Amino acid sequence: MASNRPNRQWLIAERPLGRAVEESDFTFKESESRDPGPGEVLIKTLYLAFDPAQKGWMENIGGYAAPTEIGDVMRGTGLGQVVQSSSDKLAEGDIVLGQLGWEEYPTVAADTVQKVDNNDLMTAYMGPLGTTGLTAFFGLFDVGKPVPGDTVVVSGAAGATGSMVGQFAKIAGCKTVGIAGGPDKCAWLTSEGGYDAAIDYKTGDVREQLKAHCNQSIDVFYDNVGGKILNEALRHISLNARVVICGGISRYETGGMPAGPENYFNLIFKRASMTGFLLTDYVHKFDFARGRILEWIRDGKVTYKEDIQEGFENTPKTFMRLFTGQNFGKQMLKIADPA
Amino acid sequence: MASNRPNRQWLIAERPLGRAVEESDFTFKESESRDPGPGEVLIKTLYLAFDPAQKGWMENIGGYAAPTEIGDVMRGTGLGQVVQSSSDKLAEGDIVLGQLGWEEYPTVAADTVQKVDNNDLMTAYMGPLGTTGLTAFFGLFDVGKPVPGDTVVVSGAAGATGSMVGQFAKIAGCKTVGIAGGPDKCAWLTSEGGYDAAIDYKTGDVREQLKAHCNQSIDVFYDNVGGKILNEALRHISLNARVVICGGISRYETGGMPAGPENYFNLIFKRASMTGFLLTDYVHKFDFARGRILEWIRDGKVTYKEDIQEGFENTPKTFMRLFTGQNFGKQMLKIADPA
Repeated sequence: MASNRPNRQWLIAERPLGRAVEESDFTFKESESRDPGPGEVLIKTLYLAFDPAQKGWMENIGGYAAPTEIGDVMRGTGLGQVVQSSSDKLAEGDIVLGQLGWEEYPTVAADTVQKVDNNDLMTAYMGPLGTTGLTAFFGLFDVGKPVPGDTVVVSGAAGATGSMVGQFAKIAGCKTVGIAGGPDKCAWLTSEGGYDAAIDYKTGDVREQLKAHCNQSIDVFYDNVGGKILNEALRHISLNARVVICGGISRYETGGMPAGPENYFNLIFKRASMTGFLLTDYVHKFDFARGRILEWIRDGKVTYKEDIQEGFENTPKTFMRLFTGQNFGKQMLKIADPA
Repeated sequence: MASNRPNRQWLIAERPLGRAVEESDFTFKESESRDPGPGEVLIKTLYLAFDPAQKGWMENIGGYAAPTEIGDVMRGTGLGQVVQSSSDKLAEGDIVLGQLGWEEYPTVAADTVQKVDNNDLMTAYMGPLGTTGLTAFFGLFDVGKPVPGDTVVVSGAAGATGSMVGQFAKIAGCKTVGIAGGPDKCAWLTSEGGYDAAIDYKTGDVREQLKAHCNQSIDVFYDNVGGKILNEALRHISLNARVVICGGISRYETGGMPAGPENYFNLIFKRASMTGFLLTDYVHKFDFARGRILEWIRDGKVTYKEDIQEGFENTPKTFMRLFTGQNFGKQMLKIADPA
């Protein structure tokens, strides 16, 4: 196949430290694709997936991901199709998942991507079978350690991770309460999302609603949000509760880090714990977890919602949807159909 | 022996919610002692011991201790001598430890107090062999789970609990760093207190000193203080660190609860945990822990400092020393010598 295809890219232009991500934080660039060297493949990007952690990568905070530089192609997970291969591991036409970055024709080492089946579950590898589903799985089961009958409360419950946590907890025999913003999301939580109850933080007092649904009875709080919601949840933890710190999406709008939860002191009275985790520590168990989640999807026990925008030119705009609560389900961007 | 002894008491007059404890929060009352009923003993209080948690009892927060009422004799641990017994478990002259309250001649049920040996280690039952030593023991070993070679950092390190934690961690083969206020306390930490290094939060920048002594290498942080110091310590935790929430003495001066630690988000990057505990959960292991601590004291591996004020009239003033950093060692008040 011909190389030197016109390639479009989005580069990092600014570090959005302590403020919302903007379109001007990225530079649009037209270039050309690069021929694959030995062991490499040239890929046509079909879908990009978005996650709040990507803002952290732009900021180089935490020190847990390789640093980025201004001018780098923005890092991001995608699903693509091999168009030219110099590796005996992948052939033209293969569908792969990996760190493709925000460009139409990335050239990457074949062993940094994962081959997936070309079927209707393809995009699930960027959702329930990808980092979001795996994050929900290990955060809930390995850190939260739910026992059947436990009350599991999840913030950001209608998000890609949160919606998985609720369904997984339900399968594990727990009572599930989801916190989300707006009546549409909250209706979805209880109709399809596997939640027994929903709390709308936008239309009512979170403190009162938590008290009504789970007055000092939260056994597991799975937090994707931080800030005020984490603080109010800490007020209602039960004895020996486990607070799982997965994310702090609220910080992306308020600037800097999320406010510290002053009710952390309730950890003493309730002999409870608050624990952070990173998915990268569970790589050795990914296949195991994917197997379980796939089984649950095929059995109809887990459903998922995808929010698929279109057009490579809309990449930064689509990313920004994560921070304004516009997305409903796993945020993705479709760039092309598979050949 | 004669009853109806003149009895002096300090009663709770106000709840010092969200502000410093004041002498006017207590009412001085002259009354008479009460004859012991069946199973009871009349006790002469010899020593009272003080602990920051007593302010929480006055405030009725947390819900983990029986509520107090305005007008109650202030609750407090003491060491006393039985002067009249209607119980076959205790005889006149026995030395006992228990919830005697702030009065000179309490009458209590014999099975609510514990007989201790009348020797030079008597007051140790209100320090290293009492709640402070036991709190240090279980908070460090059961919650902090130190491994030899770990860096253990302790706030309020010159306090009754903190000074025990450092010495216990040293015995467990750890590197110990204590945070305290003022050059006298800091000198004591490294000369006698079992700490390898001391950080004076009053005379230098805590962030810089933590960076110098344990740059992102705190394996166990044992927190008695909360507020800014907890927040700065969270900045320097290591991978899989355990943050033990024992107390929040800073809240007693700033009013309300301690500020929330905004750096809690570092728990994610470092896959670390922050856990609270209460001593009451470890009652079944008290004898075991006391045996170990007594052995360490006798072997000269654990020393302790007592701050003994005198005179029953000074009870509230002595309690207030805890909240101003005046006390140096376990805060006690001597009321009488044993007969």
